[in-house]
Formats: sequence, structure tokens, C-alpha cells
Amino acid sequence: MSTVEKRHSDPERAQTRRQQVLDAAETCFRRSGFHGASMAEISKAAGMSAGHIYNYFDSKDAIIAAFVEQNVERVTAIMRNLEQQEDPLQAIVDDTARSVREHLERDTWALPLEISAEAARNPTIAAVVRDADARSRGQLRAMLKTARERHHLPVDDFALDGLVELVITLYQGLGVRVVHHPDLDAEALIARFRATLKALLFS
Amino acid sequence: MSTVEKRHSDPERAQTRRQQVLDAAETCFRRSGFHGASMAEISKAAGMSAGHIYNYFDSKDAIIAAFVEQNVERVTAIMRNLEQQEDPLQAIVDDTARSVREHLERDTWALPLEISAEAARNPTIAAVVRDADARSRGQLRAMLKTARERHHLPVDDFALDGLVELVITLYQGLGVRVVHHPDLDAEALIARFRATLKALLFS
Repeated sequence: MSTVEKRHSDPERAQTRRQQVLDAAETCFRRSGFHGASMAEISKAAGMSAGHIYNYFDSKDAIIAAFVEQNVERVTAIMRNLEQQEDPLQAIVDDTARSVREHLERDTWALPLEISAEAARNPTIAAVVRDADARSRGQLRAMLKTARERHHLPVDDFALDGLVELVITLYQGLGVRVVHHPDLDAEALIARFRATLKALLFS
Repeated sequence: MSTVEKRHSDPERAQTRRQQVLDAAETCFRRSGFHGASMAEISKAAGMSAGHIYNYFDSKDAIIAAFVEQNVERVTAIMRNLEQQEDPLQAIVDDTARSVREHLERDTWALPLEISAEAARNPTIAAVVRDADARSRGQLRAMLKTARERHHLPVDDFALDGLVELVITLYQGLGVRVVHHPDLDAEALIARFRATLKALLFS
């Protein structure tokens, strides 16, 4: 996998410029799709020359890798926070309404959906998302293991693997669901989602 | 919405040719994405002249609409079959292993994932998938309502809407999940999926 970070003499300025490119790329990908958006279009949206953008990213693949890495960092922060809760399992259940609403927001699902579709046909992107998924689900798994041990719940591989996959499936499914049914009754969904998380996490 | 079917003097032959275009389009969309695949590429893959293809479909949007319509017919067949079961709720639970494995297959999720991503940015496709979703979830809802009444389970709007949305979210999530984790433990996932469906459908 190519390195995402390039070396720059002024790291802070470079970081700001990189984020500028990422913001522009997000807009372009959401409008035109990964295939439809060109590096020229992204550089224009970022207010940079077409050549300048290559100081920060070698390719569209490298931009996607940066997005995926930001998501890994987001998941890490959520796991760190949960680990500090008295009862992480109950904390997840109590947070259902907020977390479901967040996952129904276009800002949350649009880019990941585009990246998933691209990963289905682009082996480079597939490798990036699979590596990121392995790290994120490893963190989720470790957090759930500790939390379940305190409740004397099963923590064998079969129990944990199935739990991790189903919980992530639920959240990943929300973005696809809302594309198909944007006017869905969020309250009704949240009630079922909460009951499902509770049954899953505590069994 | 534009009509999907065009009139032809030999309906049977036209039907065969239409399916030929759909098969070619599926290959092209999965390889290059909806944006990357041109009508010229699709006609070439179908072994037709670029002009000939327009006898069957006006545009790529019309091809997508035909795929979506085929999926509605697939769902209708599943619902008709479930309605004939003695206990449709238990039949769904008993069918978990097969249905989950089917949804983890690339042939099942690749095209719908591409269509979902396109629907997120293309209002014409969004309208097509939303109309189709409304019909399919209406059928699922009606089937579940009748089946739950027999078990004296709640069938108010809140209970049914939440149930329908969560069940579809679970299945729609599987395609995204397997892109991120192709080597997931299907047995472990199926065990949790079955328990979750049982808890959902019977409460």
C-alpha cells in the first residue's frame, strides 16, 4: 500500500492544505462518484493548480485511503470513550437514538457508500478498506470482550465474531437503507434498533 | 418516470435481446461502475451495434430501472412463497442460513451496491429505487402483519414500521459488510442473525 503522508517542510501548513484537498474531494466524489471525479476537478474545487495537488496526494486512491484512515481514527476515539464507561454495553444501548440518527445523516453515509462501491471493483481500494476494517473491528472486539467478561457473558471466538459482524452490519446497513427510504420513521426504527442491540450485547 | 418497456413486433425475441443487454450491462457496471460504463461499452459487451441498443433502452438510467424492477419481482415471489407457509415468521427464521449466505454472495450484492451508490447522487435513479422500495416493503409489511396477527403480536404502525426497516437494514447491510470483511465467519454471523430475526419477528 502506498504511503498516504508525504513529507513537507511546513507540516502544519501542509496539514491544512491536505484537509482542503480532502474537503474538495468529498464534494466531488459525492457529486460525480469516484470514477466521475477527476484530479483536475478536485484541484479546481480545492482552489489549487492541477500540479499542486500532487504535492499532497499521488492519486484518487491515495485520497480515498486518507478518508478511510480518518474513519479508523473516528472509531478509535469512540472505542476509547466506551472503554472509560462504567458499563460499555449499556452505554452503547443508551446511545442508540443518537448513533442511529447520525448514521442516517447524509454526511455520515454518502462517502462511505461511494467508497464501498468503489472497493467492490477496485482492488487497491478494497485492500485499503479491508485493512482499516480489520483494525476497527479488532478494537470493537477487544472492547466488547472486556465489557462482556464483567457481565460473565460468553467471550469465545464464535460468540464474539458473530456479535461484532452483526453489530457492524446493522450500522453499515443504515446508510443503504436511508437511500432507499429517506422518509423512514426514525423513531420506530430506533426503538427496534435499541431492543436489538440490547438483546445482542447482553446474550 | 420513463417507461422501461419499449414496443416491439416480436415480443419474445425482444425479451431475449433485452436480457442480453441487461447481462452485458451488469458485467460493465460491476467492472467500471455506473459512471465508468458507457452505452457504447455495454452494446459492445452485448454483441450489438451502438445504435441497436437504443431499441431496447433509452439510457443507462433505463437499464438500471429494469434491474430494480427485476428485484421487485424477486421480492414479490419471496413474499408469495412466505404467505403460503403455515408460519411465515418461523419460515423466515428457519431460512436464515440460506438467505444470509445468498446475501453475502457477490452476485447478490454487487449490482445493488452500485445502484445504491448511484442513487445517492442521481435523482432519477433515486426516484426509481425509492418507488421500488415502497412497493417491496409494502409487501413485506402486509405479509408480516398477517403472520403476526396469528401470533397475537403487535401490528400497530410503530411496531410494523420499525420491524420492516430493521429487517431490511440487516439484509442490506450484509453486502456492505462483506466488501469490508470478505473472510468473515459466516457461521458465527448466521447464528447471531438467526437469533436476532427470531427476537425481532416474535416481539
